[in-house]
Order: sequence, then C-alpha cells, then structure tokens
Amino acid sequence: MSGYQVDPWLLRWNELSVAELRRTESTFALSNGHIGMRGTLDEGEPRGLPGTYLNGFYEEHALPYGEGGYGYPEAGQTVVNVTDGKVIRLLVEDEPLDMRYGRALSHSRELDFRSGTLRRRTEWESPTGRRVLVASERLVSFTQRAVAAIRYEVTPLDDKLQLVAQSDLLANEPMEHETGDPRVAAALNAPLVAEYWAADGARAVLAHQTRNSGLRVAAGMDHEVEVNDGLRSSVEAKGDLARFTVAADVPAGETLRLTKYLGYGWSAQRSFPALRAQVEAALAGARQTGFTGLLDEQRRFLDDFWAAADVEVDGDPELQQAVRFALFHLLQAGARGETRAIAGKGLTGPGYDGHAFWDTEVFVLPVLTYTVPDAARDALRWRHSTVDKARERAAVLGQKGAAFPWRSINGAECSAYWPAGTAAFHVSGDIASAVTQYVFATGDEDFLAEHGTELLVETARLWSSLGHHDQHGGFRIDGVTGPDEYSAVVDNNVYTNLIAQRNLRAAADASERHPREAGALGVTDTEIAAWREAAARMRIPFDPLLGVHEQNEGFTRHAEWDFERTDPDAYPLLLNRPYFDLYRKQVVKQADLVLAMHVRGDAFTPEQKAANFAYYEARTVRDSSLSAGTQGVLAAEVGLLELAYDYLAEAAFTDLHDLHDNVHNGLHMASLAGAWTGIVSGFGGMRDHGGRLAFAPRLPPGLTGLSFRLTFRGTRFVVRVAPGEATYEIVAGGAFDTSHHGEEFTVEPGSPVTLSIPDPPTPPEVAQPKHRAPRHRVPPGD
Amino acid sequence: MSGYQVDPWLLRWNELSVAELRRTESTFALSNGHIGMRGTLDEGEPRGLPGTYLNGFYEEHALPYGEGGYGYPEAGQTVVNVTDGKVIRLLVEDEPLDMRYGRALSHSRELDFRSGTLRRRTEWESPTGRRVLVASERLVSFTQRAVAAIRYEVTPLDDKLQLVAQSDLLANEPMEHETGDPRVAAALNAPLVAEYWAADGARAVLAHQTRNSGLRVAAGMDHEVEVNDGLRSSVEAKGDLARFTVAADVPAGETLRLTKYLGYGWSAQRSFPALRAQVEAALAGARQTGFTGLLDEQRRFLDDFWAAADVEVDGDPELQQAVRFALFHLLQAGARGETRAIAGKGLTGPGYDGHAFWDTEVFVLPVLTYTVPDAARDALRWRHSTVDKARERAAVLGQKGAAFPWRSINGAECSAYWPAGTAAFHVSGDIASAVTQYVFATGDEDFLAEHGTELLVETARLWSSLGHHDQHGGFRIDGVTGPDEYSAVVDNNVYTNLIAQRNLRAAADASERHPREAGALGVTDTEIAAWREAAARMRIPFDPLLGVHEQNEGFTRHAEWDFERTDPDAYPLLLNRPYFDLYRKQVVKQADLVLAMHVRGDAFTPEQKAANFAYYEARTVRDSSLSAGTQGVLAAEVGLLELAYDYLAEAAFTDLHDLHDNVHNGLHMASLAGAWTGIVSGFGGMRDHGGRLAFAPRLPPGLTGLSFRLTFRGTRFVVRVAPGEATYEIVAGGAFDTSHHGEEFTVEPGSPVTLSIPDPPTPPEVAQPKHRAPRHRVPPGD
Repeated sequence: MSGYQVDPWLLRWNELSVAELRRTESTFALSNGHIGMRGTLDEGEPRGLPGTYLNGFYEEHALPYGEGGYGYPEAGQTVVNVTDGKVIRLLVEDEPLDMRYGRALSHSRELDFRSGTLRRRTEWESPTGRRVLVASERLVSFTQRAVAAIRYEVTPLDDKLQLVAQSDLLANEPMEHETGDPRVAAALNAPLVAEYWAADGARAVLAHQTRNSGLRVAAGMDHEVEVNDGLRSSVEAKGDLARFTVAADVPAGETLRLTKYLGYGWSAQRSFPALRAQVEAALAGARQTGFTGLLDEQRRFLDDFWAAADVEVDGDPELQQAVRFALFHLLQAGARGETRAIAGKGLTGPGYDGHAFWDTEVFVLPVLTYTVPDAARDALRWRHSTVDKARERAAVLGQKGAAFPWRSINGAECSAYWPAGTAAFHVSGDIASAVTQYVFATGDEDFLAEHGTELLVETARLWSSLGHHDQHGGFRIDGVTGPDEYSAVVDNNVYTNLIAQRNLRAAADASERHPREAGALGVTDTEIAAWREAAARMRIPFDPLLGVHEQNEGFTRHAEWDFERTDPDAYPLLLNRPYFDLYRKQVVKQADLVLAMHVRGDAFTPEQKAANFAYYEARTVRDSSLSAGTQGVLAAEVGLLELAYDYLAEAAFTDLHDLHDNVHNGLHMASLAGAWTGIVSGFGGMRDHGGRLAFAPRLPPGLTGLSFRLTFRGTRFVVRVAPGEATYEIVAGGAFDTSHHGEEFTVEPGSPVTLSIPDPPTPPEVAQPKHRAPRHRVPPGD
Repeated sequence: MSGYQVDPWLLRWNELSVAELRRTESTFALSNGHIGMRGTLDEGEPRGLPGTYLNGFYEEHALPYGEGGYGYPEAGQTVVNVTDGKVIRLLVEDEPLDMRYGRALSHSRELDFRSGTLRRRTEWESPTGRRVLVASERLVSFTQRAVAAIRYEVTPLDDKLQLVAQSDLLANEPMEHETGDPRVAAALNAPLVAEYWAADGARAVLAHQTRNSGLRVAAGMDHEVEVNDGLRSSVEAKGDLARFTVAADVPAGETLRLTKYLGYGWSAQRSFPALRAQVEAALAGARQTGFTGLLDEQRRFLDDFWAAADVEVDGDPELQQAVRFALFHLLQAGARGETRAIAGKGLTGPGYDGHAFWDTEVFVLPVLTYTVPDAARDALRWRHSTVDKARERAAVLGQKGAAFPWRSINGAECSAYWPAGTAAFHVSGDIASAVTQYVFATGDEDFLAEHGTELLVETARLWSSLGHHDQHGGFRIDGVTGPDEYSAVVDNNVYTNLIAQRNLRAAADASERHPREAGALGVTDTEIAAWREAAARMRIPFDPLLGVHEQNEGFTRHAEWDFERTDPDAYPLLLNRPYFDLYRKQVVKQADLVLAMHVRGDAFTPEQKAANFAYYEARTVRDSSLSAGTQGVLAAEVGLLELAYDYLAEAAFTDLHDLHDNVHNGLHMASLAGAWTGIVSGFGGMRDHGGRLAFAPRLPPGLTGLSFRLTFRGTRFVVRVAPGEATYEIVAGGAFDTSHHGEEFTVEPGSPVTLSIPDPPTPPEVAQPKHRAPRHRVPPGD
C-alpha cells in the first residue's frame, strides 16, 4: 500500500513517483515547531504543494455567511506559505535538472529520525546524456530555532561539466487553494507584499508584510561554496525573489558543494530593519556553528529525545517504523513552538487552514507531557497567552470565564459553523484537563501558580455559567456539542460533563493550593464551594432499559442509522449526507462516550465500560482521524486485544497509508499521537486518574514484545512488556510509585521490577457498522 | 403614534413627511397578487425605496458559506424591482415638481379600501411662486390581472402655465440593498439586461432578462391625454427607459389629464415578441375598458369582497380601520396570485427577499379560506406545482415523500442556515393542515382529488421517514425545529408532532376517499395503516412535575432566561445574543406550544391550556411578528379577555405603528392575518377541529360589539357579538351546522339565531417577561 521502505529508524522512498509527491512532501516535512518546511524537491519542481510555514504567521479574510448571526466570528485566519528558502535549481551545461525529463538512474529520499534530516540522492542523466549525482541533506534546527540549512552536492559522473546552481528565496509562489470561497482564495493569492530587500556577498534578505493581518516576515539566506576549480558567483534581491548564483566547471568525480543557511523571523510589532537584523543574527550564528555543527547538535537533541521517548515494537517492523515516525513528527510539531499553538497538522501542510483544535490538548499533549514535558508546558502557555481573547469570547456568548476557540491560529475564534464550533465548549475543559495532567506528571507547581490556576479558574467559571441546577435535580450542561461531530447542540453530553466535572474540581484544588493567585482572580470560598457542588451533582445520563450510558440525553432513543443500506462510498458520511440527518440518529463519527471512558475512566465501572464499548462500537463509523486510537485503548481495556491492535495500526498508518486521502494537506498530529496512546495507554494500560499513575500492560497476539519510555516527575523509566510479564525499570532519576493491574508498588533506581500479567477479562461481543470494521492486521511475525 | 388619520374605510396621511415615505410606501402599496407597486409618489422622488414586483419574478445568486455542508442550497433567490411604470414627472414652466422644493400648500394621500385605489392630492407652489393642483388615482386591477392604471391631473391655479408631463417606464432604478454579502448586492445591482424595446404613438414596451435566473419580463404603457388646448406629445424607448412626453399650455382652472395604462408580463419560457404581444393585449383590453371602467370593476370586486369578509369593531375606530386595512392587504396579496406563492410581505416590499414561508399556510390561508376561498385554493395549487422540487429536496435529505422549502420564490429551498430553515420540517405539515382546512371549509373534493391528496400523501411520507418507533415506546420525530426560532434541532416538538399527526390521519382519510388518486401515488393499505399507527403512537412530551407540556423534549429542564437582567434594548434577542444561548434556555421567540393549542386545540384539555398558557406566557418574548395574534387567541380561550385585546391590537397595529421598525421592507402578512384571527378565532372562538365548525364568542371589555363575516361551503354568514349574546345569520346560501360554546345548532336562511354567552372561565394568573408585556390598549369608548 505505501511505497515506503520499512526501516526502524528511517522513512525512505525510492523512485520519483510524481503523483505521490504531494503526499511525501507531508511525510518528509521538517519542522522544529517554529519553522516548517514541506519535503519538496530541492529544485522546486515537480512538486505537489510547496509550503514553508512559520508558527503563528497567518493572513486574515472575511468569513462569509448566507445568514449571519450575533456573535459569529467575522474574520478567518489561514496559514500562509511564506518565503520559500528550500529552492536550489541546477543547470547542467544549460539543461535544467528537472526529474520529469532525462532519466533518473536512481533516486531516493529518506527522513532520518535520529539525525533529524531529510536526505536525497539522485543519479540523473540529462536528455542529452550527461550524468550527475546530486546529494542533499536538509534540516530545520531543533537547537537554533530560527535556522534551517541545506547541504547540496553535485558530482559529474562522466565528463567535466559546467554546473550552475541558483539558490533562491522566493515569495508568493503561485499555488492552488482548496476553498470554495473566492474571497478566501483571493486573500491567499500572493498574500505577501514585498517591503524590503537586501543582498550582499553570498547573503540576501527579503522582507514582506501580509495585506490584511499586517504581520511582517523576513527570510534570509547565506551560503558557503566549496569547489576545487574556478568559481563565479553573484547575488541579487528584489521584491519577491532573492537569488545566489554559482557557476563552476567541475571535473568528473569532483564535487560542487553548496551549503545554504536560512534564517526566518516574523513579528506583528517589530520593524523591517529589526527583523532583518534578527535573521542576519540567526544566519551568523548558524555559519559560526557550521553545517556539521548543526548536524551534531541535531543528533544530540534527538539522542536525548529517543532516550526519553522511544517505543519498541517487537514482531511488527512496519509498525515499529510508523510509531517512531509518529514520535518524530510529534516532536517536530511541538519542540520549539514556545508559546505558539500546535496546529492540527503541525507545520506540515495547509490543512485545516493551519488551525489548532482541541486535538492538541486531548491527543498530542499527553504524549508530550510524558516524553517532552517542556513542549507540553509551552503549548499550554500559548493557551494562557490567549486567555484575554477567550474571556472576550465568553462575554460575547453571554458566559462568564473564558471560552477558548474551536479553531484558531492567534487565539480568536475562526469557526464559521457554530453548532460544530463554538458549541463544542469541551475544548475549554480539554485545556483544563491537559493542565491537570501536565501538573500531575511533572509536579510543576510554578506553572500551576503562574499559568495553570488562571486557566483552571476561568474555564471552571465557564462551566458554572454554562450549566445550571435543574429543578428536577442535577447540574445540567445543555445545548453544547461533544466530540462526536455527528451529534450537535445536545444536552448533557457525558464526555463534556465529565470533563467539566474534572475541571471544576481541579479549579477548586488549584485555588486552595495557590490561594494568592486565586485571590488575585477574585476566587472566593463561596465560588469554590459552588464548583464542588456542581461537580458533585453533575448529570451523567444513563439508559436503564439498555443498560448503557447515553452519549447525550436522549441519544439512545434516537433512530438507528441504516448501515445496511449505506454503501461504502457514502463514507465519510458528512460529505454525502446532511448534518440534520446525522445529528438526529445514532451514528457516531468518532469516539465520544468511548473517549470519556478513556479520559475519565474513573467514572465508569468495568461492566459499564464493556457494555458501553459494545453499544457505541456498533454505531461508530470513524469518519474522523481522531477515533481509532481511542477505540483501541478501550478495546484493550475490555479485553479485545486483537481489535485493539487493528485500531492501533489504523491510527499509526493514517498518514503513511493516507487512509483519509488527505495527507497532501499535512499530517494528522492527533492520529500520530494515537499510535503512541494505543501502545502506552492501550497495551500498556497507562492511566493517571485521580493523582495516581497506573499500568495494566498486556501484549496483543502476534507481538513478541513491547517497550515504552516515559518521564514522570523528572524520572525517566521504561516499561517492557513480554508475554506473561512486564518489567518496570528506571533509566534516570529517583524512585516512583505506580501500580500494575491494580497492584501498587514502588520502582527504585537500579532495581527493575518484573510482574506477571493476569488473564484478560472476558470481552464483550462487538461488531462495527457494515463496511466500517477496521482492517485486520496480522503482524508479520504471527 | 401613527400619522394616519382614523377612518373606517380609508388609510389617509396628510403632509409630506419625507422620513416616513419608506414606511408609507409599504402601507400604501397596491397589488392584486400578481403585480405589486409600492406607494411611491407619482414623480418618483423623494422616495424611500422604489418597488414594482411581479409574483414569482426573481434573480438568483450564490449562497455563501464559511463552512459548507452536504445538501446546503447553493442558490438564493431574491425578488427583483422590475421596470417601474409608476413614474410621471411634471415640469411647471421648466421647474420640476419636487416636493422637497417650493411649498406644499396641502398634500394628502389615501388608500381607499372600497375603491381599491391610492389617491393623491397636492397643492404645490413652485420656488418661483407658481401654484398647481396635482391629483392622481392609481390602481392595480383585481379584474384585469396584468393591468395597472394611473389617472394624473394637473390644474394651474393662478395663471396659464406650460406643463410638461413625462411618463416613464424605467428599469434598473439605482437603489440600496440591505445585505451584508457583496455578491448578493452585485447580483441585485442592475439585475435586468435590456433585450427589446419599442415605441409608437402613446405606447411603449421595454423587455428585459435577468442575468442569472434567465427570466424575461416585458412592461408596456399606453396613454390617453385630455386637455382643452394645443398639445405636443412624443414617445421614445431605448434600453432601460421608455418615455411618453406631453407638453401643453394650460389656462388657470383648466386641467391636463393624463391616463396611463400599464401592462406587465413575465415568463421563463416565452420569447420577447410573445411577451410584447401579451402586454400589448393587456393594454388594449385596459383601454377598451377605460379608466372609469377599471374603477367600476375594481369597486364591484371589492363590494363583493367586503360582503363576504367584512369585520366590524364597535367601540375602537382605530382598530376598525386597522382590521379593514389588514383584510384589504391580505386580499391584495392573494387575490390573483394564481399558482404563485403568497410571500411573507406579499408584494409590498423586498423584505425576506420576497420569499414565502410557512406563515402563508398557518396564518394567511385560514383567513382566505373563510373569506376568499379561491385565493386559498390557488396558493395551495402553487405548493402543488412545486411538489417535484419538494420530492427532490426530501431525497437529498435522505427522506421519503416531499420536503417543502423553508423559504423560496420558485419552490427550491433558499435557506442558508439549516437549523432554522431546513430543520423546520413543520412547514410541510402546515401545508397539509391548510389543505385539510380548505377542503373542510369548502367541500372542494375536486381539489382534494387533483391536488390535495398528493400533497397529503407526500407530506405524510415525509413524517413516516422523519419519525421512528422508539424501542422505549412512542413514535418520535427527532432533530427538527418547531415554530419557536429560539429553540432549534430538538426532539419531539409538540407543535410539529401534532401537525404531523393530523397530516398522517388526513393522508389516510384522503387516500380512502380518493383511492384511484392514492393508488396512482402507490399508496397501499399497509402504508395507510402505518400512518394511522404512527399518528396513534405520536409522542407528546409532558412534564408531570410542572404539570405542563414540554415545548419539546427536555425544554422544561433547560435553564431559565435571566429576564431580570435583560435590558429593553437587548430585544429582539437574536440581534444581541448568540443562537447557542437562546437555543439552550427557556426563552421563546414566538408562540409554539401556544400555537399548537390553537391549531390543534383538540389535543389539549381546558386545564392543560390554562396551565400551558401561563407557563409559556412567562417565557415568550414576541421577537417575531408571528406571535401576538396567536397569543391573543389562546388568551381569549383561557378567559384573559383584556390580555387578548392587547395582543389583538399588537397584531393589528404591527405595520401601522411599525412595531418592528421594518415596515419599510414591506408589510407583515401574517400579522395582518393575526388581526383577523384575533377577532374571529380569539373573540369569536371559531375553531374547525375534527370536521366541525364551532364558535365560542365573547366580547372584550370596552367594545360594544363585534361582527365578522365568513364563507363556509358556499354559505356566507355573519356572526354578531354583543354584550351577553351572539347572533348567527345567513347572508347568502343554505343552512349549516355549528356550535356555540359547545351547544350544537343549525342556522337556516332567513332565521338568525341569537344565543346567550356564558360567563368566561376563571383565568390563570399570567405574567410576561420583564419589558415584554404587550402595550395595554384601552378602547377609546371604554
């Protein structure tokens, strides 16, 4: 299915496959969370979709409404393809290297998870028969946040050849936009206005400003050229193009080596001269480190990451590759964001307009919290930096506290369809949940005091005003939308209410732990008591006739979807059926009650989990990439280990197998996270409810072993799962308490603990909707 | 409050009041249901909003969506201001008569409900001191459907004066559009493309086509001029302008009389020559009848109407005027529509884009059914003519049968916000209800066979597929929107379910009465049995704790709206509060459960009506013009006669007092209907549930008498309500059975029946939301 070669530490693709470029540009994307570069070929063409992104840099456009409404967001935001610095064009004796012409004798690209680079090696024969070897290696530096670098080498293979390399900075690349609104397309067509340019020696800078959002960006490049023979070079810059040109006659077997350093900076405030200075400083630092130095730093950074975060899968090499691919891209999305958002696609493509959603807090941050906790903290600091916008939004909506946006780049709501946007208030509870989890996993009381308490208090206030004490009994939260986007504007969504319940209690706890900060926010004992009372009386609808929880009030009374008469090509249903009919029937787009049973597993008995899982499994169509990982976690918990493995594989291969046929727009960060979660929370049984870290590991059939590494309160440890037993071992740091299948124990440094694994529970009988069962995966070793 | 003079048979306005023109252009509009002309001044300016409309003539434009969805309508329709034939400009010795200049010594306009004309009389002194008397009378003919006519007379008062009159046909008048979407404004800016013109003698024709919808329109004019002295005249036509010019020297006291005949035709099919022939034939007919002949025909038509439909109110002259104003405009909206829609604003203005809504069937058609039944029949034939579009819409929505549009001109759905549009499926049941009522009131079995059965069967099929038998018991209709637009996408809306119940039973009855027609539609005994079963098991939610019906499932558990803290200027709430918060709270925009208690009063006990009325009265804010009339009907039924009178006045004065500050966009047909309903169904207690016509008259305090005339199965009769007794008398036709406060009796021709009125029931205690009580009306005679 995929054209990737299986390798535990690399993603490699041989051959050109022009039609696949738009996909591989996403999977081969490089990013440090601040700069993102799609994996386009060095020479710029052929290409799928070019893309260079800076976290937080967007253009604004009007949101259109056929019928408007009070409080509808007026402005949308869309990530901008900024000045492209990846392009290095080559002329071989005046024939441009274009892989669509001549002949590629060999061609491969590989993303190396340990070096953190994208390598390319092409043996090309020009239409007139001249052969050259082109090798390049590209990185976006984890250690020097504003820097990317490319080493580009050309070797004539048969004769001395004249080689001309043109290294560009190129703004406003023409490209197509997937939008039905001509005004949005217009806003994104050449969004950058050239304001400033400079060139000198081997260096050039271009600076631009967006038309509507008014953000300024500067991109700079500098070069080193190594060649034995005589060399001519020149540099120029004007408007949307800066170009450094080198020409040399290179004998056969000798190499023209061009090293390109790129520096990027953007600001809503700073002037163009200041931005130029910033990128030139970044370039100076990069040149001082040198390309080899950057490679070394990159590898050391990644060595440390893998020591803290690696996951090993014995018995399924392709899955092993996919899981490391996932972890690598999650790191790339979050490593150096530093109070910017982690978008749904990271910085790998323009999908979802570059917006961040609730996915980040619910799916991505748990991975980062237990592997790269500083990245999780920074992402939550971004949320905190937008709390004023969230307070304003809550006020517009007639609520107290803070209502965080459904989708945004800068923190302002950009969703043009409120039933599946604004109404999905759980995003605010998800943020609170991520705060609680981060503080639990790290013990970072400073963060809780400085940022976390305000986030928890303001979101708790949102729930207090959104909900009310019904005269029939119970605290209700009506008219909101839960995770399942095939139900909307419902009463008492179980997931939402349980997330709100945790939020209210966490705000009360934090306020008591940090009374000074809470006092500054005006929190009183009365308010704290009201939070606890609302949490205690939170309504959780349950259908006694069917013996299952209702996803929301009345859900189990709704009509069943006619899956028998729904053809395979009717999926995803939202593209082929009206919302109105989806909303009113028992058809579930993505884990919702099942997600509640993962995130708030403490609120359900094992029997309820089994019954609920079977009920919702039969009604969940997985038209969202956010579902498989969670279904896998619960499948494992109720004893369906083979099914859990199928879901793990679906999550892990979402992008590599392009299961949703949209990877060209960017990777699905939440699915990538789902691969980790499927292993760690699914087969590892890791849970952190109620202030305790717990495990319940079980190996699925076919695998011979599994291990995963976590960081908990400064201690790094590894859990190794083998048939029949699991071993807990500290890698660095002090002792910690945990539990294994309910049995509590302490792991001490230097003293691994091995415990046997009990038999799994008898699983419920389950079936998926027709045509929607996950693909069954048989590990090759089975 | 209003500037209108009170008169029982006229609406008169003295003085110019430029700022009021945009309002009086609506109230002074003339229409026959086919052609509509706003009451602009003859000379075209000053003006509020010019407007000449042809029923069914629209332009199309794309509907924009920030986030689209499957099945969203792509094209909107908007009524077009077609070629304006009202304009007659006057030059007095080269000074244009413009009432903003010079001096109006006197000025009045009056709409005469018996002559069916708009008269104008102006004594004007030019800036240089020349005085003329200008008198005009304008009609849109009820008897000659394609014809309008204007008599225009100018008399110099002091000196012989040169008068030049220019009589125009003018297309693409520049005007402002109330839309936030630049594409809609663009589509409506000069929407007509000139395709054909001709002029000869005193006659001219202009023909145009719309750019997008491709509809063709032709407008023609012909003239007669009477003047004693020498006369010069000329005619010309080109593009968007045709002009007939007369110039004469007129001595003081003598009169230049210009009679202008207008003919209109439009078609999606016919060629321009055919359309020209059609309007010229209309003009020839009009000239043959002559202006006086047209006046006579108009008066006879209206004499017959008032004999069938008049309502008399003794003791409140202003209300008397308002009620006749209402009836006159309802007649104008529906008289000659002839298988075209009756729009929400009739043909009085561009409000709601000229769309027809459910209002027509629920509020307007009951009036027409009992006064001008042929107009009701024709409006229902329009719905029938669109049944294929409704079937296609149902199919797109995944439903069986026919789903009629929420808003439309040509029968295709134009609503861009589905929760308050497509989801309001009750519109299909409302149409079925109007069919049932029309057939009951007229006994028109031919209509039932030819059109009614198909409407009833296809709408019953819609309910069958929209609803389902819940395993918990009951037939449920989930995820739909009822009349109250402050709740949306709810389960088991009582109004919707009761309308569906009636629909299902009516389809079953009609299929049994007309088995051949039902057979042709594929109706089987099994299907009929399923309809009856669904109707019998229809779920009607009731809250036993509070002892009231739930407007929809869960409604009474929702949070209360904080009326105490809602300022008066926060109304209408939809402009100042988000839908999400309105939807989730117990705040009601307009009668919903209360409307159910009127339309399906047979489904409630008197005790339930009193309890429900009090409960919903306290939560209903009347942000819709569709509410007051219905609240008045139920207030009267539960014994709150003063409150009923307040609501009747609110409905009746909605447009004359411009209570919603939007009468400039056109009159509210449903509110005008509410005036009639408030009297006939409110104080008359008229109901027609279950195949029986019933009355329960009661006079409100302050009135000395009330009477209303109805037509029932060919019999015209009058009900006169006096203090303590009511008299039933046949005006024409045979005997009929009815009941008076539950006592059944028969009225024979020539034998009026007088019956005493029992004491009213003890009313419940009620209160409205703060700031939202209706204005208390004390009849002047009280």
